[in-house]
Amino acid sequence: MLELVRTSDEPLGDQIVEGFGRMIAAGRLAGGVRLPSVRQLARKLGVSVFTVVTSYDRLVARGLIEPRHGAGFFVAARTGLSVPAPIESAGQPDTILGLAKGALGSPDIVVPAGSGFFPPGWLADAIPPSVTSRVIRRDSTSLKPSPPAGEPALREQLALRLNHKGIRAGAANVLVTFGASHAFDVIIRGLLAPGDAVLVEDPGYFVLFAQLQRWGLRLLPVPRGADGPDLDRLEILCRTNRPRAMFMQTLVHNPTGSNATPATCHRLLALAERYEFLIVEDDVYGDLAEDHELRLAEIDEMRRVIHVGSMTKVLGPGLRVGFLAADPAMIERLVEVKILSVLSGATLPELLVAEVLESGRFRRHVEQLRRRLAKVRAIAAKVLRQSGVSLDRLPESGMFLWGRVGDHVDVDELVRAASAEGILLANGKLFRPTGDRSQHLRFNAGYASDPTLLRFLESALAG
Amino acid sequence: MLELVRTSDEPLGDQIVEGFGRMIAAGRLAGGVRLPSVRQLARKLGVSVFTVVTSYDRLVARGLIEPRHGAGFFVAARTGLSVPAPIESAGQPDTILGLAKGALGSPDIVVPAGSGFFPPGWLADAIPPSVTSRVIRRDSTSLKPSPPAGEPALREQLALRLNHKGIRAGAANVLVTFGASHAFDVIIRGLLAPGDAVLVEDPGYFVLFAQLQRWGLRLLPVPRGADGPDLDRLEILCRTNRPRAMFMQTLVHNPTGSNATPATCHRLLALAERYEFLIVEDDVYGDLAEDHELRLAEIDEMRRVIHVGSMTKVLGPGLRVGFLAADPAMIERLVEVKILSVLSGATLPELLVAEVLESGRFRRHVEQLRRRLAKVRAIAAKVLRQSGVSLDRLPESGMFLWGRVGDHVDVDELVRAASAEGILLANGKLFRPTGDRSQHLRFNAGYASDPTLLRFLESALAG
Repeated sequence: MLELVRTSDEPLGDQIVEGFGRMIAAGRLAGGVRLPSVRQLARKLGVSVFTVVTSYDRLVARGLIEPRHGAGFFVAARTGLSVPAPIESAGQPDTILGLAKGALGSPDIVVPAGSGFFPPGWLADAIPPSVTSRVIRRDSTSLKPSPPAGEPALREQLALRLNHKGIRAGAANVLVTFGASHAFDVIIRGLLAPGDAVLVEDPGYFVLFAQLQRWGLRLLPVPRGADGPDLDRLEILCRTNRPRAMFMQTLVHNPTGSNATPATCHRLLALAERYEFLIVEDDVYGDLAEDHELRLAEIDEMRRVIHVGSMTKVLGPGLRVGFLAADPAMIERLVEVKILSVLSGATLPELLVAEVLESGRFRRHVEQLRRRLAKVRAIAAKVLRQSGVSLDRLPESGMFLWGRVGDHVDVDELVRAASAEGILLANGKLFRPTGDRSQHLRFNAGYASDPTLLRFLESALAG
Repeated sequence: MLELVRTSDEPLGDQIVEGFGRMIAAGRLAGGVRLPSVRQLARKLGVSVFTVVTSYDRLVARGLIEPRHGAGFFVAARTGLSVPAPIESAGQPDTILGLAKGALGSPDIVVPAGSGFFPPGWLADAIPPSVTSRVIRRDSTSLKPSPPAGEPALREQLALRLNHKGIRAGAANVLVTFGASHAFDVIIRGLLAPGDAVLVEDPGYFVLFAQLQRWGLRLLPVPRGADGPDLDRLEILCRTNRPRAMFMQTLVHNPTGSNATPATCHRLLALAERYEFLIVEDDVYGDLAEDHELRLAEIDEMRRVIHVGSMTKVLGPGLRVGFLAADPAMIERLVEVKILSVLSGATLPELLVAEVLESGRFRRHVEQLRRRLAKVRAIAAKVLRQSGVSLDRLPESGMFLWGRVGDHVDVDELVRAASAEGILLANGKLFRPTGDRSQHLRFNAGYASDPTLLRFLESALAG
């Protein structure tokens, strides 16, 4: 029924997807018809099981076929629908939204080397099904709305976790959000007005830049070095621009992996005091650093600092549980912004996180991630260097390696070529608030040893 | 274990609630203990099943007991945490945010008569723990990020559900959001600019008004009658104000419960065409109407209409799964707005809803809710009238009764007095885009027969 052209430039997986797509569109495969099993088709076409699985996944994503548990894949029943368009396009790989979409799981991506999420296998033990079963049987989740500031049990546990990190906090200091990006959104909308100037790190977190720009804020880039932001430059910007806020990552900086030193933290807070700006401390990757490392919120005691964290990175990207910590009056103000954006939170994910924190499982899991990362980072650094990527330094924590390629390399072209092969690369220019050209790329240590990636880099960087 | 005093003035239901409440508070019924089944207790005490059901619902609403699917009611588990400070203040009961917070579960509220959510007991069977267990074991949820437009399986199921309602849609027409409020937020931010004029219904949904106002939009109130919006008034507003959009509820209008007629729908779409405005159709309570009722999206085929729905109302307020449906190009645009607000959705709640839709459980559950509501609405209307509340009409669907009190009653004062007794009332003025005084109150039929409420109303309205 389906024949592949091995001499074609079109990858075999694409041929399978397009072939079935045409047959379904033409009505030659009617709704309800069962497709060959993955193994059958792989054998028949002489391709790998993996190729068939990913092709079927793409057909499912397009709404053309449906998996039925235990029974295989079936052509989707059309109740008089027009054939839907492909529903997730990967987008331009060298734009902020393209990189975000790619990292969030585009079906076209095979090696998400530029992603900011752990490989799924690293998180498989974080919340076992037995824990979820226990929570749903105990708490009859979701029958009642979740209080808008968050489930009280989770706020309490997050406050305890902050205390372990040296940050004095109680439940009243914590506002739960749908991940850290949502926390930034609530802060931006609640506390900043279009036209305001805000200090950001260069390089820094790319989705945040898009959020700030979308809100009409003026970004003032502060160079980020291994010790933290360049405070001399920052002070000049304060004198000339009167920024209202600074967004920064004290520890496990994304993308460079560096930690700001305690001395930088102290001086930065003094500048915030003098020039009267708020600091939003992004601690999203902070669980990958040691708990005793110094954070701004610890010394400031949440007077000028709003601390943002996430459980999503270390427990599971599909959870969407983050939080912000601030003084209780600020929380009161921001909870109203949250109500007007999403009304309230989702009970089950919040109670799952509370349970995992409370049982001690969280700390064991995080320690395991740190140990595994330390090994993997060293290996990744070695093989990336062998493939032609320079690394300024090997970070002491986190999942990121901030690589650099030679000046002769057109990074935009490199990223597009990688994308065509199903490899997601994170273009360094996206991490620059100015969007200026960069010879850097951010690598996820969990994917950096992937042979497909390394072969691609070797061949592209040798040229 | 519990004895009723038949000679007492205290209604039997109150005696049951207070009796169990005291035993739980005193520790004589420990967390996890199973209560007698509804039928057992009714037989033992010689009261009706209805009295026991409503008493248990009230104990659930107070957080003292929990329904578990198929297994009855259990005393709620108390966690061993230090007693947390009261972290959710009820807020002013006569403000939009106060009402929202109260409905979302303030500990001070005992009778949430003004809430827009079903009593928890009504939803106990919607998603049994066995379904959740199956989904988490099958899909290893949360290890990967959820695609930003929503889980493909859920988008497909939501599209099928739209088709059942007569709205032609495929997965590419659906964007999943954290509830309907989040859908409104995404639409407002993606498609409207501060200063734009928007048409809204008077009365209409209060949280939406606050969202629109917070975004700097000018609200143009269109009187809502039993047949739908007043189109003559609407046309005058179009001539003078050039609105960019209209937000309306075609079916099961909140707060009045009315359905717009097909004739009104057709004429409204013609006006939208002539004056070039977008219509956002809020179908949040639409599952409580019959599927065959006419919705704007059915006749418009999603050219000028964005259709908003929610699974949260009928499956569980703590789920936070809603969606918007529009043409695919619009979805592409709005998914970017979603990414910049929350990055992506939560896998587990989305897959739970997909499973419940796919298995047919959803339709059975919704039909059960409709039948139960029909009975309870009639009873609620009767007892509210006996307590001094007038009803213009008895709606044919939904959970709301739009009551009116005499002109001598100071409604603000009434709402505050109720709040002091733990009764949440929904002040009619909050449902007016102008915030003008109103003699109306919105009652939730699921709570309207609560004796505490009725006693309060009788005494307050007699005075």
